[in-house]
Amino acid sequence: MDETTPGTVRPGGRTARTRAAVRDATLAELARHGYQGLTVENVAERSGVHKTTLYRRWGGPDGLVVDALDLAGEDGWRPPDTGTLAGDLAELASQVYGTFTDPAQAAAPSAFVAAAFDSERAAAALRRFYADRHTRSAEVVTRAIRRGELPPDTDGEALVRAVTAPLYFRLFVTREPLDEPLTAQAVAAAVAAARAGVFTSAGGA
Amino acid sequence: MDETTPGTVRPGGRTARTRAAVRDATLAELARHGYQGLTVENVAERSGVHKTTLYRRWGGPDGLVVDALDLAGEDGWRPPDTGTLAGDLAELASQVYGTFTDPAQAAAPSAFVAAAFDSERAAAALRRFYADRHTRSAEVVTRAIRRGELPPDTDGEALVRAVTAPLYFRLFVTREPLDEPLTAQAVAAAVAAARAGVFTSAGGA
Repeated sequence: MDETTPGTVRPGGRTARTRAAVRDATLAELARHGYQGLTVENVAERSGVHKTTLYRRWGGPDGLVVDALDLAGEDGWRPPDTGTLAGDLAELASQVYGTFTDPAQAAAPSAFVAAAFDSERAAAALRRFYADRHTRSAEVVTRAIRRGELPPDTDGEALVRAVTAPLYFRLFVTREPLDEPLTAQAVAAAVAAARAGVFTSAGGA
Repeated sequence: MDETTPGTVRPGGRTARTRAAVRDATLAELARHGYQGLTVENVAERSGVHKTTLYRRWGGPDGLVVDALDLAGEDGWRPPDTGTLAGDLAELASQVYGTFTDPAQAAAPSAFVAAAFDSERAAAALRRFYADRHTRSAEVVTRAIRRGELPPDTDGEALVRAVTAPLYFRLFVTREPLDEPLTAQAVAAAVAAARAGVFTSAGGA
Protein backbone atom coordinates (compact mmCIF):
# COMPACT_ATOMS: atom_id res chain seq x y z
CA MET A 1 0.00 0.00 0.00
CA ASP A 2 1.35 3.40 -0.87
CA GLU A 3 0.07 6.82 -1.63
CA THR A 4 -0.61 5.97 -5.25
CA THR A 5 -3.45 3.69 -4.10
CA PRO A 6 -6.39 5.99 -3.39
CA GLY A 7 -7.48 6.15 0.18
CA THR A 8 -4.93 3.82 1.71
CA VAL A 9 -2.87 6.47 3.45
CA ARG A 10 -3.64 8.06 6.81
CA PRO A 11 -7.42 7.65 7.06
CA GLY A 12 -8.91 10.97 8.12
CA GLY A 13 -5.83 12.82 6.98
CA ARG A 14 -4.87 14.55 3.82
CA THR A 15 -5.46 11.58 1.55
CA ALA A 16 -8.94 10.88 2.88
CA ARG A 17 -9.80 14.57 2.51
CA THR A 18 -8.44 14.69 -1.03
CA ARG A 19 -10.25 11.51 -1.92
CA ALA A 20 -13.54 12.84 -0.56
CA ALA A 21 -13.09 16.12 -2.46
CA VAL A 22 -12.42 14.21 -5.68
CA ARG A 23 -15.42 11.97 -5.01
CA ASP A 24 -17.68 14.98 -4.41
CA ALA A 25 -16.46 16.65 -7.60
CA THR A 26 -16.90 13.41 -9.55
CA LEU A 27 -20.50 12.99 -8.32
CA ALA A 28 -21.29 16.62 -9.13
CA GLU A 29 -19.84 16.29 -12.63
CA LEU A 30 -21.65 12.99 -13.20
CA ALA A 31 -24.91 14.56 -12.09
CA ARG A 32 -24.38 17.49 -14.43
CA HIS A 33 -22.89 15.91 -17.55
CA GLY A 34 -23.31 12.13 -17.18
CA TYR A 35 -20.51 9.65 -17.62
CA GLN A 36 -19.88 10.62 -21.24
CA GLY A 37 -19.24 14.20 -20.14
CA LEU A 38 -16.99 13.31 -17.20
CA THR A 39 -13.49 14.72 -17.71
CA VAL A 40 -10.43 14.79 -15.46
CA GLU A 41 -10.06 18.49 -16.27
CA ASN A 42 -13.53 19.33 -14.93
CA VAL A 43 -13.02 17.23 -11.79
CA ALA A 44 -9.67 18.97 -11.25
CA GLU A 45 -11.26 22.38 -11.54
CA ARG A 46 -14.17 21.53 -9.27
CA SER A 47 -12.14 19.69 -6.60
CA GLY A 48 -9.07 21.94 -6.58
CA VAL A 49 -6.89 18.84 -6.99
CA HIS A 50 -4.35 19.20 -9.78
CA LYS A 51 -5.12 17.20 -12.89
CA THR A 52 -1.69 15.56 -12.95
CA THR A 53 -2.46 14.20 -9.46
CA LEU A 54 -5.82 12.94 -10.69
CA TYR A 55 -4.27 11.21 -13.70
CA ARG A 56 -1.51 9.70 -11.56
CA ARG A 57 -3.74 8.41 -8.76
CA TRP A 58 -7.10 7.78 -10.45
CA GLY A 59 -5.96 7.10 -14.00
CA GLY A 60 -8.90 8.72 -15.80
CA PRO A 61 -12.68 9.04 -15.82
CA ASP A 62 -13.30 5.35 -15.20
CA GLY A 63 -10.96 5.39 -12.20
CA LEU A 64 -12.87 8.36 -10.80
CA VAL A 65 -16.12 6.42 -11.16
CA VAL A 66 -14.64 3.30 -9.56
CA ASP A 67 -13.40 5.24 -6.54
CA ALA A 68 -16.68 7.13 -6.14
CA LEU A 69 -18.54 3.81 -6.19
CA ASP A 70 -16.12 2.21 -3.74
CA LEU A 71 -16.58 5.17 -1.37
CA ALA A 72 -20.36 5.02 -1.79
CA GLY A 73 -20.13 1.41 -0.63
CA GLU A 74 -18.36 2.48 2.56
CA ASP A 75 -21.41 4.25 3.95
CA GLY A 76 -23.25 2.96 6.98
CA TRP A 77 -26.43 2.08 5.15
CA ARG A 78 -28.53 -0.58 6.81
CA PRO A 79 -31.80 -2.02 5.56
CA PRO A 80 -35.11 -0.99 7.16
CA ASP A 81 -36.49 -2.85 10.17
CA THR A 82 -40.26 -2.31 10.22
CA GLY A 83 -41.16 -5.53 12.02
CA THR A 84 -42.53 -7.40 9.00
CA LEU A 85 -41.03 -8.81 5.82
CA ALA A 86 -43.58 -7.05 3.62
CA GLY A 87 -42.92 -3.77 5.41
CA ASP A 88 -39.15 -4.07 5.07
CA LEU A 89 -39.30 -5.00 1.39
CA ALA A 90 -41.78 -2.19 0.69
CA GLU A 91 -39.34 0.23 2.30
CA LEU A 92 -36.42 -1.14 0.24
CA ALA A 93 -38.45 -0.73 -2.96
CA SER A 94 -39.56 2.71 -1.84
CA GLN A 95 -35.95 3.82 -1.40
CA VAL A 96 -35.18 2.81 -5.00
CA TYR A 97 -38.37 4.48 -6.20
CA GLY A 98 -37.59 7.65 -4.24
CA THR A 99 -34.02 7.87 -5.51
CA PHE A 100 -34.78 7.35 -9.17
CA THR A 101 -37.91 9.46 -9.43
CA ASP A 102 -36.01 12.51 -8.06
CA PRO A 103 -33.79 13.77 -10.90
CA ALA A 104 -31.30 15.35 -8.51
CA GLN A 105 -30.82 12.08 -6.60
CA ALA A 106 -31.04 9.87 -9.70
CA ALA A 107 -28.30 11.51 -11.74
CA ALA A 108 -25.16 10.04 -10.16
CA PRO A 109 -26.41 6.45 -9.66
CA SER A 110 -27.76 6.47 -13.22
CA ALA A 111 -24.36 7.63 -14.46
CA PHE A 112 -22.73 4.73 -12.59
CA VAL A 113 -24.98 2.29 -14.44
CA ALA A 114 -24.14 4.02 -17.74
CA ALA A 115 -20.40 3.96 -17.06
CA ALA A 116 -20.46 0.17 -16.77
CA PHE A 117 -21.32 -0.07 -20.49
CA ASP A 118 -18.04 1.61 -21.39
CA SER A 119 -15.64 0.48 -18.71
CA GLU A 120 -15.03 -3.02 -17.39
CA ARG A 121 -13.49 -1.48 -14.26
CA ALA A 122 -16.66 0.53 -13.63
CA ALA A 123 -18.74 -2.61 -14.24
CA ALA A 124 -16.69 -4.51 -11.66
CA ALA A 125 -17.10 -1.67 -9.14
CA LEU A 126 -20.85 -1.61 -9.76
CA ARG A 127 -20.99 -5.39 -9.29
CA ARG A 128 -19.15 -5.03 -5.95
CA PHE A 129 -21.42 -2.20 -4.86
CA TYR A 130 -24.65 -4.09 -5.52
CA ALA A 131 -23.31 -7.38 -4.15
CA ASP A 132 -22.57 -5.61 -0.87
CA ARG A 133 -25.96 -3.85 -0.88
CA HIS A 134 -27.73 -7.18 -1.41
CA THR A 135 -25.70 -8.84 1.35
CA ARG A 136 -26.71 -6.06 3.75
CA SER A 137 -30.34 -6.09 2.57
CA ALA A 138 -30.60 -9.83 3.12
CA GLU A 139 -30.74 -9.08 6.84
CA VAL A 140 -34.46 -8.39 6.42
CA VAL A 141 -34.89 -11.97 5.21
CA THR A 142 -32.86 -13.38 8.09
CA ARG A 143 -35.18 -11.58 10.49
CA ALA A 144 -38.28 -12.79 8.61
CA ILE A 145 -37.04 -16.38 8.83
CA ARG A 146 -36.47 -15.91 12.56
CA ARG A 147 -40.05 -14.66 12.92
CA GLY A 148 -41.32 -17.72 11.03
CA GLU A 149 -42.47 -15.70 8.01
CA LEU A 150 -40.40 -17.63 5.46
CA PRO A 151 -38.90 -21.10 4.90
CA PRO A 152 -35.62 -21.35 6.85
CA ASP A 153 -33.43 -21.93 3.81
CA THR A 154 -34.71 -18.92 1.85
CA ASP A 155 -31.90 -17.24 -0.11
CA GLY A 156 -32.10 -13.68 1.21
CA GLU A 157 -30.02 -12.10 -1.51
CA ALA A 158 -32.10 -13.73 -4.23
CA LEU A 159 -35.26 -12.42 -2.59
CA VAL A 160 -34.10 -8.83 -2.21
CA ARG A 161 -32.84 -8.84 -5.81
CA ALA A 162 -36.31 -9.96 -6.90
CA VAL A 163 -37.88 -6.94 -5.19
CA THR A 164 -35.88 -4.24 -6.96
CA ALA A 165 -35.14 -5.93 -10.31
CA PRO A 166 -38.52 -4.96 -11.86
CA LEU A 167 -37.88 -1.30 -10.97
CA TYR A 168 -34.37 -1.19 -12.42
CA PHE A 169 -35.61 -3.07 -15.49
CA ARG A 170 -38.08 -0.27 -16.24
CA LEU A 171 -35.60 2.47 -15.41
CA PHE A 172 -32.67 1.29 -17.50
CA VAL A 173 -33.95 -1.24 -20.04
CA THR A 174 -37.56 -0.70 -21.05
CA ARG A 175 -37.37 3.02 -20.14
CA GLU A 176 -40.88 2.99 -18.67
CA PRO A 177 -41.92 5.27 -15.82
CA LEU A 178 -42.11 3.94 -12.27
CA ASP A 179 -45.18 4.39 -10.15
CA GLU A 180 -46.21 3.36 -6.67
CA PRO A 181 -48.64 0.57 -7.68
CA LEU A 182 -45.84 -0.99 -9.71
CA THR A 183 -43.51 -0.78 -6.74
CA ALA A 184 -46.11 -2.45 -4.53
CA GLN A 185 -46.63 -5.14 -7.16
CA ALA A 186 -42.90 -5.89 -7.26
CA VAL A 187 -42.91 -6.37 -3.50
CA ALA A 188 -46.04 -8.53 -3.56
CA ALA A 189 -44.60 -10.72 -6.33
CA ALA A 190 -41.34 -11.29 -4.46
CA VAL A 191 -43.15 -12.09 -1.21
CA ALA A 192 -45.53 -14.52 -2.94
CA ALA A 193 -42.61 -16.28 -4.65
CA ALA A 194 -40.66 -16.45 -1.38
CA ARG A 195 -43.64 -17.90 0.49
CA ALA A 196 -44.04 -20.50 -2.26
CA GLY A 197 -40.44 -21.53 -1.59
CA VAL A 198 -39.01 -20.34 -4.91
CA PHE A 199 -35.90 -18.88 -3.24
CA THR A 200 -35.10 -22.04 -1.24
CA SER A 201 -32.66 -24.68 -2.37
CA ALA A 202 -35.61 -26.84 -3.50
CA GLY A 203 -36.75 -23.91 -5.66
CA GLY A 204 -40.40 -24.25 -4.71
CA ALA A 205 -40.60 -27.44 -6.73
CA MET B 1 -44.96 11.36 -45.74
CA ASP B 2 -42.06 12.02 -48.06
CA GLU B 3 -38.72 10.54 -48.92
CA THR B 4 -37.02 12.29 -46.00
CA THR B 5 -38.91 10.03 -43.58
CA PRO B 6 -37.01 6.75 -43.50
CA GLY B 7 -38.85 3.80 -44.92
CA THR B 8 -42.07 5.52 -45.90
CA VAL B 9 -41.50 5.41 -49.64
CA ARG B 10 -42.17 2.47 -51.93
CA PRO B 11 -41.94 -0.51 -49.55
CA GLY B 12 -39.79 -3.16 -51.15
CA GLY B 13 -38.26 -0.62 -53.49
CA ARG B 14 -35.17 1.49 -53.34
CA THR B 15 -35.97 3.10 -50.01
CA ALA B 16 -36.63 -0.17 -48.23
CA ARG B 17 -33.39 -1.63 -49.64
CA THR B 18 -31.41 1.44 -48.60
CA ARG B 19 -32.99 1.40 -45.18
CA ALA B 20 -32.15 -2.28 -44.70
CA ALA B 21 -28.56 -1.70 -45.84
CA VAL B 22 -28.20 1.17 -43.38
CA ARG B 23 -29.77 -0.93 -40.61
CA ASP B 24 -27.38 -3.83 -41.34
CA ALA B 25 -24.40 -1.49 -41.29
CA THR B 26 -25.62 0.15 -38.07
CA LEU B 27 -26.01 -3.23 -36.34
CA ALA B 28 -22.57 -4.34 -37.50
CA GLU B 29 -20.97 -1.12 -36.28
CA LEU B 30 -22.82 -1.30 -32.96
CA ALA B 31 -21.67 -4.88 -32.50
CA ARG B 32 -18.10 -3.89 -33.24
CA HIS B 33 -17.71 -0.53 -31.52
CA GLY B 34 -20.76 -0.07 -29.28
CA TYR B 35 -22.94 3.03 -29.30
CA GLN B 36 -20.11 5.32 -28.27
CA GLY B 37 -18.14 4.24 -31.34
CA LEU B 38 -21.03 4.53 -33.79
CA THR B 39 -20.31 7.14 -36.44
CA VAL B 40 -22.20 8.21 -39.56
CA GLU B 41 -18.92 7.97 -41.48
CA ASN B 42 -18.42 4.29 -40.61
CA VAL B 43 -22.04 3.43 -41.42
CA ALA B 44 -21.67 5.26 -44.75
CA GLU B 45 -18.55 3.30 -45.61
CA ARG B 46 -20.04 -0.05 -44.59
CA SER B 47 -23.46 0.48 -46.22
CA GLY B 48 -22.33 2.24 -49.38
CA VAL B 49 -24.88 4.99 -48.69
CA HIS B 50 -23.38 8.47 -48.91
CA LYS B 51 -22.92 10.19 -45.59
CA THR B 52 -24.77 13.31 -46.68
CA THR B 53 -27.79 11.06 -47.35
CA LEU B 54 -27.39 9.50 -43.91
CA TYR B 55 -27.20 12.88 -42.20
CA ARG B 56 -30.18 14.19 -44.16
CA ARG B 57 -32.45 11.19 -43.61
CA TRP B 58 -31.27 9.74 -40.27
CA GLY B 59 -29.85 12.84 -38.61
CA GLY B 60 -26.95 11.17 -36.81
CA PRO B 61 -25.98 8.17 -34.70
CA ASP B 62 -29.09 8.32 -32.52
CA GLY B 63 -31.32 8.40 -35.59
CA LEU B 64 -29.52 5.32 -36.93
CA VAL B 65 -30.18 3.52 -33.65
CA VAL B 66 -33.84 4.58 -33.60
CA ASP B 67 -34.41 3.30 -37.12
CA ALA B 68 -32.57 0.02 -36.46
CA LEU B 69 -34.75 -0.51 -33.37
CA ASP B 70 -37.94 0.37 -35.25
CA LEU B 71 -37.01 -2.12 -37.99
CA ALA B 72 -36.16 -4.77 -35.37
CA GLY B 73 -39.69 -4.31 -34.05
CA GLU B 74 -41.15 -5.06 -37.49
CA ASP B 75 -40.04 -8.69 -37.42
CA GLY B 76 -42.53 -11.52 -37.23
CA TRP B 77 -41.48 -12.68 -33.78
CA ARG B 78 -44.15 -14.57 -31.87
CA PRO B 79 -43.88 -16.00 -28.37
CA PRO B 80 -43.43 -19.74 -27.83
CA ASP B 81 -46.43 -22.07 -27.57
CA THR B 82 -45.34 -25.14 -25.63
CA GLY B 83 -48.75 -26.01 -24.20
CA THR B 84 -48.09 -24.85 -20.62
CA LEU B 85 -47.53 -21.48 -19.00
CA ALA B 86 -44.36 -22.64 -17.26
CA GLY B 87 -43.03 -24.02 -20.53
CA ASP B 88 -43.78 -20.85 -22.47
CA LEU B 89 -42.23 -18.59 -19.83
CA ALA B 90 -39.18 -20.83 -19.57
CA GLU B 91 -38.74 -20.54 -23.31
CA LEU B 92 -39.10 -16.72 -23.17
CA ALA B 93 -36.46 -16.55 -20.44
CA SER B 94 -34.27 -18.97 -22.35
CA GLN B 95 -34.36 -16.72 -25.42
CA VAL B 96 -33.10 -13.77 -23.34
CA TYR B 97 -30.48 -15.99 -21.72
CA GLY B 98 -29.36 -17.36 -25.09
CA THR B 99 -29.11 -13.94 -26.70
CA PHE B 100 -27.14 -12.27 -23.94
CA THR B 101 -24.75 -15.10 -23.12
CA ASP B 102 -23.60 -15.21 -26.77
CA PRO B 103 -21.32 -12.21 -27.30
CA ALA B 104 -22.03 -12.08 -31.04
CA GLN B 105 -25.80 -11.95 -30.48
CA ALA B 106 -25.58 -9.74 -27.39
CA ALA B 107 -23.60 -6.87 -28.87
CA ALA B 108 -26.29 -5.00 -30.79
CA PRO B 109 -29.12 -5.29 -28.23
CA SER B 110 -26.68 -4.28 -25.47
CA ALA B 111 -25.69 -1.25 -27.54
CA PHE B 112 -29.36 -0.30 -27.87
CA VAL B 113 -29.69 -0.33 -24.08
CA ALA B 114 -26.52 1.77 -23.79
CA ALA B 115 -27.69 4.29 -26.40
CA ALA B 116 -30.78 5.08 -24.32
CA PHE B 117 -28.54 6.61 -21.65
CA ASP B 118 -27.32 9.22 -24.11
CA SER B 119 -30.28 9.83 -26.38
CA GLU B 120 -33.89 10.47 -25.44
CA ARG B 121 -34.88 9.44 -28.98
CA ALA B 122 -33.12 6.10 -28.55
CA ALA B 123 -34.78 5.67 -25.14
CA ALA B 124 -38.20 6.28 -26.71
CA ALA B 125 -37.46 3.76 -29.47
CA LEU B 126 -36.34 1.20 -26.89
CA ARG B 127 -39.52 1.83 -24.89
CA ARG B 128 -41.61 1.23 -28.04
CA PHE B 129 -39.66 -1.91 -28.88
CA TYR B 130 -40.11 -3.53 -25.47
CA ALA B 131 -43.73 -2.41 -25.13
CA ASP B 132 -44.49 -4.19 -28.39
CA ARG B 133 -42.49 -7.28 -27.34
CA HIS B 134 -44.40 -7.46 -24.06
CA THR B 135 -47.74 -7.04 -25.84
CA ARG B 136 -46.87 -9.94 -28.14
CA SER B 137 -45.48 -12.06 -25.27
CA ALA B 138 -48.66 -11.60 -23.24
CA GLU B 139 -50.32 -14.04 -25.64
CA VAL B 140 -48.81 -16.86 -23.54
CA VAL B 141 -50.77 -15.54 -20.57
CA THR B 142 -54.00 -15.26 -22.55
CA ARG B 143 -53.62 -18.91 -23.49
CA ALA B 144 -52.84 -19.90 -19.90
CA ILE B 145 -55.98 -18.12 -18.69
CA ARG B 146 -57.98 -19.96 -21.35
CA ARG B 147 -56.54 -23.27 -20.10
CA GLY B 148 -57.52 -22.34 -16.53
CA GLU B 149 -53.91 -22.02 -15.35
CA LEU B 150 -54.26 -18.44 -14.08
CA PRO B 151 -56.88 -16.05 -12.69
CA PRO B 152 -58.89 -14.58 -15.61
CA ASP B 153 -57.89 -10.98 -14.93
CA THR B 154 -54.13 -11.62 -14.82
CA ASP B 155 -52.17 -8.76 -16.43
CA GLY B 156 -50.21 -10.62 -19.08
CA GLU B 157 -47.70 -7.88 -19.77
CA ALA B 158 -46.91 -7.48 -16.07
CA LEU B 159 -46.31 -11.21 -15.81
CA VAL B 160 -43.99 -11.48 -18.81
CA ARG B 161 -42.05 -8.42 -17.60
CA ALA B 162 -41.59 -10.19 -14.26
CA VAL B 163 -40.00 -13.18 -15.98
CA THR B 164 -37.23 -11.33 -17.78
CA ALA B 165 -36.63 -8.37 -15.42
CA PRO B 166 -34.29 -10.34 -13.10
CA LEU B 167 -32.15 -11.34 -16.07
CA TYR B 168 -31.83 -7.82 -17.48
CA PHE B 169 -31.18 -6.50 -13.95
CA ARG B 170 -28.12 -8.71 -13.68
CA LEU B 171 -26.96 -8.01 -17.21
CA PHE B 172 -27.17 -4.22 -17.16
CA VAL B 173 -27.34 -3.08 -13.54
CA THR B 174 -25.63 -5.43 -11.11
CA ARG B 175 -23.35 -6.80 -13.86
CA GLU B 176 -23.60 -10.33 -12.52
CA PRO B 177 -23.37 -13.38 -14.76
CA LEU B 178 -26.51 -15.24 -15.83
CA ASP B 179 -26.88 -18.95 -15.38
CA GLU B 180 -29.58 -21.49 -16.07
CA PRO B 181 -30.67 -22.05 -12.42
CA LEU B 182 -31.16 -18.29 -12.10
CA THR B 183 -33.24 -18.26 -15.28
CA ALA B 184 -35.37 -21.12 -13.95
CA GLN B 185 -35.77 -19.27 -10.63
CA ALA B 186 -36.99 -16.14 -12.41
CA VAL B 187 -39.65 -18.19 -14.19
CA ALA B 188 -40.69 -20.01 -11.00
CA ALA B 189 -40.95 -16.71 -9.10
CA ALA B 190 -43.14 -15.13 -11.76
CA VAL B 191 -45.40 -18.19 -11.98
CA ALA B 192 -45.79 -18.39 -8.18
CA ALA B 193 -46.65 -14.68 -8.01
CA ALA B 194 -49.13 -15.01 -10.88
CA ARG B 195 -50.84 -18.02 -9.27
CA ALA B 196 -51.08 -16.04 -6.01
CA GLY B 197 -52.99 -13.38 -7.98
CA VAL B 198 -50.32 -10.67 -7.71
CA PHE B 199 -50.78 -9.62 -11.35
CA THR B 200 -54.59 -9.33 -11.10
CA SER B 201 -56.41 -6.08 -10.44
CA ALA B 202 -56.84 -7.12 -6.80
CA GLY B 203 -53.05 -7.55 -6.61
CA GLY B 204 -53.20 -10.82 -4.72
CA ALA B 205 -54.40 -8.95 -1.66
